Amino acid sequence: MGSGLSDEAAMRHALRLALRGTGRVSPNPRVGCVILKDGRIIAEGWHAEYGGPHAEVMALERATEDVRGATLVVTLEPCVHQGKTPPCTPRIIERGIARVVIGMLDPNPQVNGRGVEQLRAAGIQVELGVLEADCFWLNRFFAKHVRTGMPYVVGKLAQSLDGCIALPDGESRWISSEESRRRVHALRAELDAVLVGKGTVFRDNPRLTVRKVPGRQPWRVVLDTHLQLPMMSFVFTDEYRDRTIVCCSAQAARQRKAETLREAGVQLLELPTDSDGRLHLPSLLRELSQRFQIASVLVEGGAGVMSAFLQQQLLDELHLFCAPIVLGKGRHPFEQLQVPSIQDAPRWHLQAVLRSGEDLQCILLREPLPQFRQQSAEATTVLV
Amino acid sequence: MGSGLSDEAAMRHALRLALRGTGRVSPNPRVGCVILKDGRIIAEGWHAEYGGPHAEVMALERATEDVRGATLVVTLEPCVHQGKTPPCTPRIIERGIARVVIGMLDPNPQVNGRGVEQLRAAGIQVELGVLEADCFWLNRFFAKHVRTGMPYVVGKLAQSLDGCIALPDGESRWISSEESRRRVHALRAELDAVLVGKGTVFRDNPRLTVRKVPGRQPWRVVLDTHLQLPMMSFVFTDEYRDRTIVCCSAQAARQRKAETLREAGVQLLELPTDSDGRLHLPSLLRELSQRFQIASVLVEGGAGVMSAFLQQQLLDELHLFCAPIVLGKGRHPFEQLQVPSIQDAPRWHLQAVLRSGEDLQCILLREPLPQFRQQSAEATTVLV
Repeated sequence: MGSGLSDEAAMRHALRLALRGTGRVSPNPRVGCVILKDGRIIAEGWHAEYGGPHAEVMALERATEDVRGATLVVTLEPCVHQGKTPPCTPRIIERGIARVVIGMLDPNPQVNGRGVEQLRAAGIQVELGVLEADCFWLNRFFAKHVRTGMPYVVGKLAQSLDGCIALPDGESRWISSEESRRRVHALRAELDAVLVGKGTVFRDNPRLTVRKVPGRQPWRVVLDTHLQLPMMSFVFTDEYRDRTIVCCSAQAARQRKAETLREAGVQLLELPTDSDGRLHLPSLLRELSQRFQIASVLVEGGAGVMSAFLQQQLLDELHLFCAPIVLGKGRHPFEQLQVPSIQDAPRWHLQAVLRSGEDLQCILLREPLPQFRQQSAEATTVLV
Repeated sequence: MGSGLSDEAAMRHALRLALRGTGRVSPNPRVGCVILKDGRIIAEGWHAEYGGPHAEVMALERATEDVRGATLVVTLEPCVHQGKTPPCTPRIIERGIARVVIGMLDPNPQVNGRGVEQLRAAGIQVELGVLEADCFWLNRFFAKHVRTGMPYVVGKLAQSLDGCIALPDGESRWISSEESRRRVHALRAELDAVLVGKGTVFRDNPRLTVRKVPGRQPWRVVLDTHLQLPMMSFVFTDEYRDRTIVCCSAQAARQRKAETLREAGVQLLELPTDSDGRLHLPSLLRELSQRFQIASVLVEGGAGVMSAFLQQQLLDELHLFCAPIVLGKGRHPFEQLQVPSIQDAPRWHLQAVLRSGEDLQCILLREPLPQFRQQSAEATTVLV
């Protein structure tokens, strides 16, 4: 290698480039790429738009010098299949790249390892697993979606240190700090959809828009089984109303109200109901994925919706913003859930704890992350 | 200074020596001291036993070389007053120490700054505030006790991530991890007393002993207003029963049961009651301090006792062991507390967050620590 940028430093740079695709490439992955010659970066690329050129191709096209004999560093295994664009692996081979450094294998079953095979068969030296955990973290939404056809589901809670999400009268503004609210907006800008129950819209009439950070507006998914929400709710009337999906029962979808909503420009999604008359959540998630290409959903509440997602084991990740206040008698996030014994309680894995203004932000995962070969010291998540 | 140990490294060593006094010197402070010559440690001292020699004196006596011209590094300002032992400052002066490095001023109003004055008046160079935050943290119990005549009160809670301390039927074993339970035993060994309400003894019959770590048995304080607890409870019958203080009303103290308890070797503490018939907690704390020399109390529960301490603003510190499980419908620590609005909620200051096995250990303070001149990177508390 000699002097110059290490593989790890180059991968860290590629990770930063990948973030430029946030909110723009889903359900495709965020990918970043740099090309190194004698340890110097001679090209940068990233996946910038859904359907647009892949990071490797952008980097190859932007190279300021001949790439023959160079090292290509990419966060995700190069693809071998024809998608919206031609496969990347042949392009890398034909341009004479000598060495490819890859963050993680493509979880897409159509690729998974075949990119590496083709590169090696062409005589290219391949390093795999550089900052693998960071690369996986960046594309955990994509990984779940491409493997299962279901979106990755993140729950968000703002609570007091004694676990209250509201006072008994429903007051919840504001439990969390300004910084925590900013981070929720950043999550909205990162994920493909935000989801709330009817009660939250009734009570708070939230906009569910991205305001405190720059970023694109996600889909807004509202569960309203019987289409009872007032037409003047912000989610039905504001400039993003065509990004609102109202989910209701088949019966409700035949009502006049359904037509009114469609005329207002809102999307209507008819769903089967459970034996207890509630919308069937796995069907909802499948429809969001298949009809709307939604790869990630942020569940923002309220307590009933959050409990249902938890109980049906549909939450992959939980962001708990914990404010250092005591609310005492109040409402709790999963108060409708009955756990038979402490041993049988749903167990989460603490992935990271961050300070968020005055609050703590705990990131919990239902399944622990796989054991990765390598994770950077400055990983996206600060582990305690 | 030349090469050799820096003031900060020497202070860190003195802090470690001070910890040897844990459980042995209260209500006196834990103090550590080293003497440096040409950057080498030529003596170590610590306050080892209540009433025994102070750290500085031990170090001066143990010095392996002439201390003339040496630097003495001590976590707490040397004393100027006659206590159980003669004052330290004259000893330091007469032995020809050239320079004294002090962690923090003695919060004891009888000393506070006068030690530094006397040393400087004798021509000794004094540095003040090296690792001051760490030194203060070590003696926060002492500082409160010596200034106010009241013990420092720490609350301990083990809860699920949704803020449950028990299932609806009271089951709470075990919400927290083995490591968290070990840390509670370490807190018991560090603080002078553990305190529980009647309900906890009725329900769990706890031993409240130090088992999972080495350390001395603290006082056990049981609130039992009407002396209703069964005589066969562990706290009344085991080998440490003479370290049990049962607190009751004046009326109960005249009952036959009170005599039975005294005969069993248990200490009885008669207290005034509030208008609602409950034991008056400020009187309790004052008695613990004045009659039993208790400088620190660990409140272990249950919910009623914890809520009362919180509501009356008697908690200085809270250790929240948060397990990554969801318990849903359950009991909450402060459920008896009514907060009028979120703005008026009791606010805490997040001092530290530590990983404790699978759990998080959050250390919260009612008042933020004062701004200190210096805190070590490897402070006792890991700040996020």
